[in-house]
Order: sequence, then C-alpha cells, then structure tokens
Amino acid sequence: MPISKNKIKYIRSLEQKKTRREEGVFVAEGPKLTGDLLGHFHCRYLAATAKWMEVHPLVQADEKEVASPDELQRASLLKTPQDVIAVFEQRKEQVDASVTATQLCLALDDVQDPGNLGTIIRIADWFGIEHIFCSFGTADVYNPKVVQATMGALARVHVHYLSLKELIGSLKNIPVYGTFLDGTNIYTQSLSETGLIVMGNEGNGITPEVRSLINRKLFIPNYPTGKETSESLNVAVATAITCAEFRRRFIAP
Amino acid sequence: MPISKNKIKYIRSLEQKKTRREEGVFVAEGPKLTGDLLGHFHCRYLAATAKWMEVHPLVQADEKEVASPDELQRASLLKTPQDVIAVFEQRKEQVDASVTATQLCLALDDVQDPGNLGTIIRIADWFGIEHIFCSFGTADVYNPKVVQATMGALARVHVHYLSLKELIGSLKNIPVYGTFLDGTNIYTQSLSETGLIVMGNEGNGITPEVRSLINRKLFIPNYPTGKETSESLNVAVATAITCAEFRRRFIAP
Repeated sequence: MPISKNKIKYIRSLEQKKTRREEGVFVAEGPKLTGDLLGHFHCRYLAATAKWMEVHPLVQADEKEVASPDELQRASLLKTPQDVIAVFEQRKEQVDASVTATQLCLALDDVQDPGNLGTIIRIADWFGIEHIFCSFGTADVYNPKVVQATMGALARVHVHYLSLKELIGSLKNIPVYGTFLDGTNIYTQSLSETGLIVMGNEGNGITPEVRSLINRKLFIPNYPTGKETSESLNVAVATAITCAEFRRRFIAP
Repeated sequence: MPISKNKIKYIRSLEQKKTRREEGVFVAEGPKLTGDLLGHFHCRYLAATAKWMEVHPLVQADEKEVASPDELQRASLLKTPQDVIAVFEQRKEQVDASVTATQLCLALDDVQDPGNLGTIIRIADWFGIEHIFCSFGTADVYNPKVVQATMGALARVHVHYLSLKELIGSLKNIPVYGTFLDGTNIYTQSLSETGLIVMGNEGNGITPEVRSLINRKLFIPNYPTGKETSESLNVAVATAITCAEFRRRFIAP
C-alpha cells in the first residue's frame, strides 16, 4: 500500500519550525542518521524501501510503512532523497545550570546558520560535551538542515533553549569562557575541565549583555602573531579549536 | 546608462566552471569581499550602486558601471544581492614544490564541498599558510560559493591544482602529515614549522595512493579518549584543529 498523500504532506510540513513545535517532532533521513537516532529518540513514524525494511526487521516505530523510491522522494526534505525517512519525537527534558560545575558545556549566543549549529553539535560530541545551551535567537536544533549536519551526534548531545543571561547570571564560582579578538592568548591561560564556553553570532559575536558576564576572555592566536589576516574565524572553526585546546590539557600523553 | 543585458548574461555565465576557465576570470560580490580582493587581483569589470561608487572613486577596474539595485539583483549569483559585483582575473602562477621546505603548506585530496574549501582557505589565512595544493578532484577555488566563503582570505592564500601523487612523490626529506582515525595522537608527536599537511575527502578521506606517501600519520584524540562518538570530524574542523596545534608549538608564550 502506498504512503498516503496526507502522510507526505505531514512530513513536508515539518520543514516549518512552527509545525515541528506544535507536533513535538522532527524529521531525519538516511540509513546512517536514522540508525544513529533510533534508540535515542522515540520514533513515531518510519517509511523506507522494501529492501531497507528487510534488512532492519526489528526497528521500533509507532508506525512503519514500505515506500517506493518515488514516494520517498516526494516526502523528502533533502535534495538527494534517501532509503529511509523517520519522524522522531523531540526530547522533553530539563537540565539544571549546575551541570556546568561537573561538566564542560557550551553556550551559543545567536548562532544562526543551521550548518554551523550542526557542525558544533558534532564537535561537542567528539569532545565529550553533552550539553549545549542556546539563546532563543540560535537556529532550531530540529531544523532538518541541523539534524542532517549533526551526522547522528544529536543522539548523544543535548541542546537546550533558554535565556543565556539568566543561565550565566545564576552560576556561582563557575568559569565562563568566551573567545574575543581582544581576549588573552588561550595557550597561556589556565583552562578548567568543567565550566561554560560561550560562542557568539556569525557576524556580531557575543551580545553585550552576555559579554559582560564572561569572566575568562580568550583569544585564538593567529600566525605569525600580529600579521594581517581575515578578521575572524568561522564560529564552528573557533569552537573546534577552543574545545580541542580545553581537552588537550586533560588528555594524558 | 543601465548595464546591458549581455553584461548581466556574462556575469551569470561565470557560475559555470567551464566559462570561468575559458575566460580566466571569477566573480566576487559585496563591499567587504570586493574591497579585500581589489589590489590583489586585476579587476576586469565592476558594477555598483551610485552610492558605493561615490564612496570609492579611486577603485581601479578595466570597466566600471553604475548599476541600479534591480540590475545588481539580476546579475547576482547570490541569494542576497550586494551593492557591488566585480569580475576579477584568475591568478596565473606557478609554485615550486620546494616551498614546502621553507613554509607549512596544505594539500587537499578531493575536498568536494565548496563551503569546506572556502572555510579551509580562511583557516589557512589565519594560520599564515600561503599555499594550498589541491587534487584535480577538489572543488574549484573560483566557484562563487568558495570565493564568498573565503571572506577575502583568497587575497593572501594561493591555491594550486595538480597531481598530489606527483607533488608528494617529488618531495625529498619533507615531512608529509595527514590525519587518520588510526594515526598517532597529534599531541604526543613532534611537529615541524614547515612541510605539508594533507586533508582528505569528506566521505572517503585520503585516497590510497596519496595515503601511502604520507610519512607522519596523526590522530586528533576525542574526549574522553576511546568513548563512542561521531565517526569523524568535518574536514574543515579537522584542518582547523590540526593547523592550530602545529602553530601552537611555535608561538612564543
């Protein structure tokens, strides 16, 4: 039996943030990504080719349907449709700010590009960062472009939306780091294994109200130091270099 | 006088690699990017709003035309057209492989995503890397998406296309580094201030024939080491972390 037109319409409607929020779900596509998220997110609906279904008979979903490649193409939010498309429930979870006392966490202050957010989630996963706090102006983690760019890291990294001003304001004796062009050389600073690293918007950096709450201002030195270069590093690139340096300090040689 | 339809057609035709190569030119858009490239590349043609022209009366180009926002929009290769659009001549230059004896250089083995290539050029600029050697399968540096993503770094970073196998095969006593999931912890290795760092394709990594020529295999450790994570880092992210670590060793504290 073919997938109903209504189902295709429903999946496509989840490209809109408003619909995703109302339904409390998001879409993931492709065997690798879907496989990574199954078991970490409750699967409401899954459509796949007969071949994929045959190879994955035990997949748990509220509803499963075999689909033709043509149907998958019509349902897909991607340029290149995949063998499988799934609708997962969004996580509903609260996390306490006190997690920054026992773990290293990230905060994103209006990171707007979905590709950057997805890449940052993947970086966080690589470096064992489990919680990312996002300002309300940051891209939606359940945007299909973000979900696809995480390459499955979403299974292990938890993303929360809140007021960064309130979050950081509530912290006591927690190091709060940020990278700035006028910060201090990251390689000469003492870095901690726990705390919060704030990264800012692509064009404008960290907002003034959050900036004033940062107590450790860092700078990633260019080379040779002082040379004329591009004005800044891409936010995902700066996040990667910063996280790598924090972790390097605590990796036994 | 309005820009001719033929001129708009010409600019739009430069979205195609074949046309760019035949004409030996490329397109850059936006005040910041165009400003960064003027003086580094010969400008064949420049169209801008009357206001932009007024502020930049001394700009040197073979041909300059005032354009209406509507005309700029029709000529633009971007989603959000800018105040200025320029056609520059591609660089015609040769570089000798011996540059790897006196500088740190990058080699890209089939990096296919234009955004990744642009980001890598920006990273190279930040870390004072002046030459990038690309396999023929790597994205075209003059692709408008690459040019825009470099944010002007193209002014200082020179990109060359050649056979990496031949390039690396011709090197004698030069350290050739690459990152691999089964490489050795980069933080425990001695790194040099000169030589060549090879980065591979987004999906397949470094090709076997190039891999066999790499004499220093590195690994960027995840954290905690040995933990389950995403399978790899994005190639631009891995390039950033690698270049940062190479340069860190030679930055005086």
